[in-house]
Amino acid sequence: MIRFDSDYMAGAHPEVLEALVRTNLELTAGYGNDPYTAEARDIIRHLCDCPTAEVMLLVGGTQTNATAIDGILRQTEGVLAADSGHIAVHEAGAIEAAGHKVLTLPHYDGKVRAEDVDRYITDFYADETYQHMVAPGALYISQPTEYGTIYSRAELESLSATCHKHNIPLYIDGARLGYALAAEGVDFTLRDIARLADAFYIGGTKCGALFGEALVITRPALIKSLFSLVKQHGALLAKGRLLGLQFSTLLRDGLYTRIAGRAVEQARRLREAFRAAGYDVVIESPTNQQFLRLPNAVIDRLREHASFDYWGPRGETHSTVRFVTSWATTDDDIDELISYL
Amino acid sequence: MIRFDSDYMAGAHPEVLEALVRTNLELTAGYGNDPYTAEARDIIRHLCDCPTAEVMLLVGGTQTNATAIDGILRQTEGVLAADSGHIAVHEAGAIEAAGHKVLTLPHYDGKVRAEDVDRYITDFYADETYQHMVAPGALYISQPTEYGTIYSRAELESLSATCHKHNIPLYIDGARLGYALAAEGVDFTLRDIARLADAFYIGGTKCGALFGEALVITRPALIKSLFSLVKQHGALLAKGRLLGLQFSTLLRDGLYTRIAGRAVEQARRLREAFRAAGYDVVIESPTNQQFLRLPNAVIDRLREHASFDYWGPRGETHSTVRFVTSWATTDDDIDELISYL
Amino acid sequence: MIRFDSDYMAGAHPEVLEALVRTNLELTAGYGNDPYTAEARDIIRHLCDCPTAEVMLLVGGTQTNATAIDGILRQTEGVLAADSGHIAVHEAGAIEAAGHKVLTLPHYDGKVRAEDVDRYITDFYADETYQHMVAPGALYISQPTEYGTIYSRAELESLSATCHKHNIPLYIDGARLGYALAAEGVDFTLRDIARLADAFYIGGTKCGALFGEALVITRPALIKSLFSLVKQHGALLAKGRLLGLQFSTLLRDGLYTRIAGRAVEQARRLREAFRAAGYDVVIESPTNQQFLRLPNAVIDRLREHASFDYWGPRGETHSTVRFVTSWATTDDDIDELISYL
Amino acid sequence: MIRFDSDYMAGAHPEVLEALVRTNLELTAGYGNDPYTAEARDIIRHLCDCPTAEVMLLVGGTQTNATAIDGILRQTEGVLAADSGHIAVHEAGAIEAAGHKVLTLPHYDGKVRAEDVDRYITDFYADETYQHMVAPGALYISQPTEYGTIYSRAELESLSATCHKHNIPLYIDGARLGYALAAEGVDFTLRDIARLADAFYIGGTKCGALFGEALVITRPALIKSLFSLVKQHGALLAKGRLLGLQFSTLLRDGLYTRIAGRAVEQARRLREAFRAAGYDVVIESPTNQQFLRLPNAVIDRLREHASFDYWGPRGETHSTVRFVTSWATTDDDIDELISYL
Repeated sequence: MIRFDSDYMAGAHPEVLEALVRTNLELTAGYGNDPYTAEARDIIRHLCDCPTAEVMLLVGGTQTNATAIDGILRQTEGVLAADSGHIAVHEAGAIEAAGHKVLTLPHYDGKVRAEDVDRYITDFYADETYQHMVAPGALYISQPTEYGTIYSRAELESLSATCHKHNIPLYIDGARLGYALAAEGVDFTLRDIARLADAFYIGGTKCGALFGEALVITRPALIKSLFSLVKQHGALLAKGRLLGLQFSTLLRDGLYTRIAGRAVEQARRLREAFRAAGYDVVIESPTNQQFLRLPNAVIDRLREHASFDYWGPRGETHSTVRFVTSWATTDDDIDELISYL
Repeated sequence: MIRFDSDYMAGAHPEVLEALVRTNLELTAGYGNDPYTAEARDIIRHLCDCPTAEVMLLVGGTQTNATAIDGILRQTEGVLAADSGHIAVHEAGAIEAAGHKVLTLPHYDGKVRAEDVDRYITDFYADETYQHMVAPGALYISQPTEYGTIYSRAELESLSATCHKHNIPLYIDGARLGYALAAEGVDFTLRDIARLADAFYIGGTKCGALFGEALVITRPALIKSLFSLVKQHGALLAKGRLLGLQFSTLLRDGLYTRIAGRAVEQARRLREAFRAAGYDVVIESPTNQQFLRLPNAVIDRLREHASFDYWGPRGETHSTVRFVTSWATTDDDIDELISYL
Repeated sequence: MIRFDSDYMAGAHPEVLEALVRTNLELTAGYGNDPYTAEARDIIRHLCDCPTAEVMLLVGGTQTNATAIDGILRQTEGVLAADSGHIAVHEAGAIEAAGHKVLTLPHYDGKVRAEDVDRYITDFYADETYQHMVAPGALYISQPTEYGTIYSRAELESLSATCHKHNIPLYIDGARLGYALAAEGVDFTLRDIARLADAFYIGGTKCGALFGEALVITRPALIKSLFSLVKQHGALLAKGRLLGLQFSTLLRDGLYTRIAGRAVEQARRLREAFRAAGYDVVIESPTNQQFLRLPNAVIDRLREHASFDYWGPRGETHSTVRFVTSWATTDDDIDELISYL
Repeated sequence: MIRFDSDYMAGAHPEVLEALVRTNLELTAGYGNDPYTAEARDIIRHLCDCPTAEVMLLVGGTQTNATAIDGILRQTEGVLAADSGHIAVHEAGAIEAAGHKVLTLPHYDGKVRAEDVDRYITDFYADETYQHMVAPGALYISQPTEYGTIYSRAELESLSATCHKHNIPLYIDGARLGYALAAEGVDFTLRDIARLADAFYIGGTKCGALFGEALVITRPALIKSLFSLVKQHGALLAKGRLLGLQFSTLLRDGLYTRIAGRAVEQARRLREAFRAAGYDVVIESPTNQQFLRLPNAVIDRLREHASFDYWGPRGETHSTVRFVTSWATTDDDIDELISYL
């Protein structure tokens, strides 16, 4: 059975695991006060061309979103997001549990539009009753989105400019950021992300690590008492070096984007094979998630050999399904899947 | 200047105020442990035909919604509501501040449909990832709605049945309940409300009291430790008898619906006068709020004599405006307004 | 039965009620956007000699504490308070419900000492693990305290200086502030309070109003988006003018301290009569609450004629009881009580 | 430099790491829906002799405490704990961030007494104002405590009986549970813990795992919607099998207590060597933490060769320090330290 359910089915990239094994018996200080975390922070600041960035390594994506957004917002503020955004749908109300409303915008294949953000905020303050409503205090976007799409550099510039025009920070959920940085036709770099976002995270869990997300805060003092806030959210890993080691291994010499690039290329091959076989590509995704509309009979036949998820409910005759590749996908996996078409 | 901005512009109905004056120097126990509150509770239980109902008197509507819904839901649950519902829009995130998401449904002139509720919950549990999402834990509706419309008895029966089929409580925001009970063509009574809802409140602030909302919980033990929860929400009035006195005065012999009925009749006259003058009635409201689409020139002219609010932004040539009557509106006010048409 | 249970047993001072009656049928804007609230704010700013103070009128004490402290603190901060403080004991966890820890200090007849505050904060930051603990973000004191005692001007100066040395605001719970301002031997004024505290409230509920607490923020921008925060806490009264009218009546020409002064004098007479009769005065209170240690037989006999509370559990032979006077206490009440000694 | 700072300085026990390496490239379902997590759950249920126990694997201790206690308590309830308890001091207010007060009891070398628990709850409900206070809704203890001490079986029986008499659950923080189960003179087993506690966790982070805590809920339905609650707290590890593998490796054949036992024996040797050298043993700890009072000169000399923490501030001439052993401590480390005495 070849598996395309998600990009968090394997452990860590072997180089990452090897670093953990190599250092396993070293004794270091806890909570991120170790040399490996320091190194990871330095590498990230360098890659972001942002020497003043605050870098905090956390364990998971929902945790990182909840902690960062809680730290960014005041009590009376909410966070703007696509109604398809992970925080709006699939985080079990973690944002609300910290007291904040998710203010939803329409999505276009997972993306929000700068003009919608601009209109929302403008209309908000034009409403005489705005003080009775939850004020937009930040914009959340995911890059790539939950639909595999990516914002172009121009779109990021526009969203960033809109946020700053209205004096709210832009926060980017980079759970799969590696796959965006290595996407087909990508026209931005990590430095662009760091320049345009006020805070974002570099996802490790889905991009080669056992676990781990590197929160990068580029606007000084955006979040006060970050360490304590992380602790309060139950998000402070005792053996913080496990995070430091993983990120320094992934980022030191480009392993992160290299393995993501391979997964993106595999996803492209997979998509084009389906297209060549006459099936509908539902979303033109340049990253490691591909969304296809297939006859149910085809789905049933493929599922004898491969696992993958429905995207929405099963239809009468056709359904949309999602295939996800990762650093752990092999070229043979792709060849084999294609052979079943 | 005659005023139709809202139904909370005057103090209390004179009989209510008179009761406060008459008893002012009496010394009674605090926090609702007084005979007037006991009397109000008895009257409400009797009017609801629900001798086991728990009745708690609070000060304001947002406070009552926040306290009750917080008490009803578990941490992982949210509350279903029309996307136009007061808790979804105009309570400054009070529901979220207590940790709960408002799960929005489309509205039809302020109302939700039982079929939408049913589909939402059915789809929710059909989704394999439902445990990653906020579970619908209650349904909130307002009666009348923010658009002046009311749910018919059949609609209430249907919503109640849908909720109970899915084992979630139905909560009714009755900030203007008096105007619903006295609405044109009303086909339900307070007993129906009490029979169909698991919890609801009888609004005082907008219906004759200085302030006050009577929360009625008809399903035993729906909210545990209610008194402490009210205290925790900062919603426990020290001189609780002020609430008891107002509600017993309003409800003892029908003053509540009598004064609401007069306001509804005034609103009807006002609406029909506009209609007769050729203007668009935007929403067919049988209660004390009327929504009209008028040429801006007419609005500007009327505003020299009367105050009333825009409903949404001012348009290019025409705008929608809202006129609200209350127990404090006089027939002369209506006559005068009509004279300007 | 003469009653000394508490100072919130009667309605409002007749002049206050008269103001509500006089204006009852006026139609004004809601939520504090009315001329009476504006007047009250002006009077308070003038009395505080603080023209830039932000003044917000709320309904009750727990509500005011919860809203203000929530607004002052960051998520990772707690509030220092005497372990006998109202927020630490009798507000049903309202501070914690907003996510904040109450950090307790020992009390001395209800008061905290500046040296204890100083040591707490100094020790806190000297602890290497301080980032794992809740940071002290404000100091809460009550004036008078729950034990009827008051901080002298020198003590207030010292507390204020200690807070500002450590860069945290001083917040004063003035639920009974009138009785402090009119206390025996008082050596401070409202202007001193306003000068030394960063935020405080002038209590109405226990000092002549039906209800109402006037939150005064003297440090500009201490609480951002205050109006929305009040709304979110369910603390925004629709008919805000009821608060404005009460405070302007109480404060315009000294009614507030005049009636408090009479209650304090009555409390003094009561206390000295007990002392003269040979009973123990447990706390030397210069305000309207008096704490006496009486033989149980005396308590039982007095309770045939007067109501008052135990302060702590009933002892074997003697118990401590509390007598509270208020603006509604008459000199005859005191004479009658004394006659039973 | 030999290190005794804490028991989370190394990675994982080699057998644990080996299991991760061996399975690294396997592809499994996420969020704990994998066979390794299933196996760990089965092993734990078996070791606890509690086939109906709900077992949830989380990443860290603060996270586990915050999630479990939030799930156990109602909004109006707080959790009783020693004032030295980890949740009361060193979790950055995580309990309060979820809305709950920590109700503190005096500690005796880190332990609470059943009689104190009993008196607290009895006094609470005897107080007429109890509904204005935070109700005790659970008891939290740590086993071993933060002072290295352990509750005997009789003490656990007594605490459990007291909790159940008052109808509140007993929750045990087992961050270092392995060291308790292997303590000198231990008279209870994991089955006793499971029988007496309503919920507890088996700590992995400090006892041989890279990270991980196994929450065991022995009272059916104590926490509703546990999975969603874990997700909401940001505590759901995507690659849940990493937790399953670690716990099944540690618990399958006794590795967990075996390695803890060795650390306890090392701690005993260390303590007795200090005692033999004439130094004060501050707390008689039968586990892996030892607290000694040493002359500052001795401390300074030892610190040239070994790292360990002060316990409290450095004194004038003597100070209390803590030495912690773990599975990663070698006998040579102990020998070397002793050689410096």
